[in-house]
Amino acid sequence: MVRIIKIKPEDNAAIPVEDVKQGEVLAGGLTALCSIPQGHKIALADLKPGDKIIRYGVSLGGLKTGVKAGGLISEQMLELPEASCLDRMPWGTQNSSVPPLDPSLPVFFDGYEAPGAFYAGTRNILGIMTGVQCVTGVLNVAVRKIREELLPQYPNVDGVTALNHAYGCGVAIHARESVIPIRTLKNILRNPNFGGEIMAVGLGCEKLTMDMLLEPEENNTDNVIILQEQNGFHAMIKAVMAMAERKLDRLNRRRRQRLPLERLCIGFQCGGSDAFSGITANPSAGYASDLLVSAGATVLFSEVTEVRDGAYLLAARCADRETAQKLAAEMNWYDRYLEAGGVDRSANPSPGNKKGGLANIIEKAMGSIAKSGTAPIVEVLSPGERPSRKGLIFAATPASDFVCGPLQMASGISLQVFMTGRGTPYGLEAVPVIKVSSRTAMKDVWYDLIDINAGSIAEGTESIEDVGRRIYNMIVETASGRHKPWAEEYGIFNDLCIFDPGPLT
Amino acid sequence: MVRIIKIKPEDNAAIPVEDVKQGEVLAGGLTALCSIPQGHKIALADLKPGDKIIRYGVSLGGLKTGVKAGGLISEQMLELPEASCLDRMPWGTQNSSVPPLDPSLPVFFDGYEAPGAFYAGTRNILGIMTGVQCVTGVLNVAVRKIREELLPQYPNVDGVTALNHAYGCGVAIHARESVIPIRTLKNILRNPNFGGEIMAVGLGCEKLTMDMLLEPEENNTDNVIILQEQNGFHAMIKAVMAMAERKLDRLNRRRRQRLPLERLCIGFQCGGSDAFSGITANPSAGYASDLLVSAGATVLFSEVTEVRDGAYLLAARCADRETAQKLAAEMNWYDRYLEAGGVDRSANPSPGNKKGGLANIIEKAMGSIAKSGTAPIVEVLSPGERPSRKGLIFAATPASDFVCGPLQMASGISLQVFMTGRGTPYGLEAVPVIKVSSRTAMKDVWYDLIDINAGSIAEGTESIEDVGRRIYNMIVETASGRHKPWAEEYGIFNDLCIFDPGPLT
Repeated sequence: MVRIIKIKPEDNAAIPVEDVKQGEVLAGGLTALCSIPQGHKIALADLKPGDKIIRYGVSLGGLKTGVKAGGLISEQMLELPEASCLDRMPWGTQNSSVPPLDPSLPVFFDGYEAPGAFYAGTRNILGIMTGVQCVTGVLNVAVRKIREELLPQYPNVDGVTALNHAYGCGVAIHARESVIPIRTLKNILRNPNFGGEIMAVGLGCEKLTMDMLLEPEENNTDNVIILQEQNGFHAMIKAVMAMAERKLDRLNRRRRQRLPLERLCIGFQCGGSDAFSGITANPSAGYASDLLVSAGATVLFSEVTEVRDGAYLLAARCADRETAQKLAAEMNWYDRYLEAGGVDRSANPSPGNKKGGLANIIEKAMGSIAKSGTAPIVEVLSPGERPSRKGLIFAATPASDFVCGPLQMASGISLQVFMTGRGTPYGLEAVPVIKVSSRTAMKDVWYDLIDINAGSIAEGTESIEDVGRRIYNMIVETASGRHKPWAEEYGIFNDLCIFDPGPLT
Repeated sequence: MVRIIKIKPEDNAAIPVEDVKQGEVLAGGLTALCSIPQGHKIALADLKPGDKIIRYGVSLGGLKTGVKAGGLISEQMLELPEASCLDRMPWGTQNSSVPPLDPSLPVFFDGYEAPGAFYAGTRNILGIMTGVQCVTGVLNVAVRKIREELLPQYPNVDGVTALNHAYGCGVAIHARESVIPIRTLKNILRNPNFGGEIMAVGLGCEKLTMDMLLEPEENNTDNVIILQEQNGFHAMIKAVMAMAERKLDRLNRRRRQRLPLERLCIGFQCGGSDAFSGITANPSAGYASDLLVSAGATVLFSEVTEVRDGAYLLAARCADRETAQKLAAEMNWYDRYLEAGGVDRSANPSPGNKKGGLANIIEKAMGSIAKSGTAPIVEVLSPGERPSRKGLIFAATPASDFVCGPLQMASGISLQVFMTGRGTPYGLEAVPVIKVSSRTAMKDVWYDLIDINAGSIAEGTESIEDVGRRIYNMIVETASGRHKPWAEEYGIFNDLCIFDPGPLT
């Protein structure tokens, strides 16, 4: 008998944990009127046109056609409501709290102090920032040479990464929104995993000049190489190698030390979501998030379009008026940004999301928000900003996995937890990524890419709390350098895709 | 005695070919009233506020303050005029013609036929398209393995390249402008240097589905690997390796053959320009372009904001009304695109351009247009479109070097010529790039990055035609595989930066 999952008592739709055949009797006694794929919605009552479909206790939209109890509710049958109003959202109305920390859970980790950084690092990496894409080709040649010739001499350094990006020139550097990519790049170099070492390679004629990326006291020949000042290709390589050697020598002296979890900043993200993401992987991540906040750590969650339809739920958890106002401002900015491109939030669900049972962006949002747990939201960050508080923080970013990642890096995460339903091999070169699957079938197929399976929750063999504690423990083990997630193990890394809402020139 | 260069008889400003000291007497008898850096403008007559500064026979704008003959005209002294009107530009009014081909110049090259391509290739490369950035990490691991383990067995294949990009998901796939990145990616895979072999790696849940990139008859398991259908990481690598081996085997059977130059499509671009670009490198490239067109080849030039102020000059050279109308439409689209971002064409000149003596975008445009020679313009392409005619073509792209390059690749170039004043080590992995410097000092410093020096023109030791013929000959030698430009020699390659004017979701 196939289990079906109903989240709130008032829900009139549920999802089966496996594929269901027509005529099959489901747990609870309902008979399927047609075949219903795993994770897609089944009507729990006879519903007529105009009736609202309720899941997670909220309306996903009105029905265009009626459906009998046991029938399939497909995405085509739903009318997408207007986005909720951002004006005057009540804040602080939800009595947010986090569960007390089980005494068996660790509250320390072995991390790297990073001079000048608000948080500590989990890895010890030489990051080389680029002023402009033009230098990428030369830097890549140099980085390959550094890996082969220098890195083996510095055993305490985990790696070297070229922070290549598509920004820097051919852009309107004084455009309204250029503050976003500039802040992002400036802050990425300050990620605690880079240990406070400043190294940057510029061309010399780009619009993004070094003084926009570096502080006056950093912008000197100890830290910056300008290719146009070098006498040919070989001199460029030699200059990069020589500077890298000095930086590696300093990084090599870093040592892990026992630090309280409040020195840790973790990013939470989901991608390739399905209907199980919101009931297995994301709620267990949310539980882990609550535990982390209990332990004093900072947790970022993001993805504006994926929480837009639950903005009022987040506002209700905001710790103060300023935070609630910034939340509304960031969402409002994003509404305008999408509008300028002739689209709206409904452009978000992907074909894979829909195949996985997510009918529209409201349903996706309810699942997405689950990963933020129940803690109060103490701060809202604009894209690429760094936090000034500790606790649960909403970092406003696009939902694109490979753009959200670098933005969270800029905000200071030194580890990311990534929940996936359909599966993506996503990884970041400078920040370890732990991947959590929403379904056991996913873990079975991608046995060597998924780090934690939350599918057991749908099968009833583990609780949300059980999986949440496993996530928490793997975070501490990974942060302490005692565990490598699969993507780190295999060297699976995405490009550093930067969010630049401004025009190219 | 320092030479000064005056381009048209009506010009009231010229530029010295070297730095000039105050009081120095210049060729022609003028005395410098202050020190004037190489390439910056010197007034040839006493000029008063409101007088127009004329260079290239066009107005660069009115003077805000007066200047005496022999004085420096700095960028701050010029008022930027409104952009010229795009409505009803006269077309076909200029009797465009190209010089006859000197019988000593080659009219054949040794290229690779590419099934289905309008043009022939100059290299034999396995290009692996990605459906989305999510697959990049896995594909990069596989490509390193292909290079090490497979490529040595296929000596006729020049290389393998992962066509990684930041598009594919997290985007509004049905946005107004999504046609641009989709067309670009679809056409890049059809670049003649990839020999008509189709290989693509997708994730499985991305918005950019394979049917948007491939024709129905191409979209099958012979050509496409979907990572979500693979049983773990090792299976993914195995599948990519197996498909690559089949493609390499076919590519390895390609042979160069003697082909007329009309089978060749060359891209022209400039970047890091200075005041010499418009009088040395670009005009000699323009002469080479005329020779190529004479020989039947196709030449693309691009960079909308850098020709915008000379739109009427290009319209006058358009071969028919349709071409002139499309020219106006593309420029108009770009005006609106910049406006939406709160900027205009004046955002274009970079600090390096200005340091090099280019006061504003009009002066930069006049120099930029010089690289298109004098041939009639037979077609105008939207970003990433493929040509349907042969001859001189304007391919509308952003001026950003690393964005223009991939767009010209999509349009079918199998070789690029790149003129630079300040110097950039720019390169493309699948298309050889010949770099031409505008100044001898540049070539002296970057002796092993600049392929051809056009600075000799400013010094009076070579003519525009001399350098143009050298460029022409190097194009034929490089296209035929008998010469490798420096960037190809050293493996200096930029990322594949795609133009996506639409919003992220």
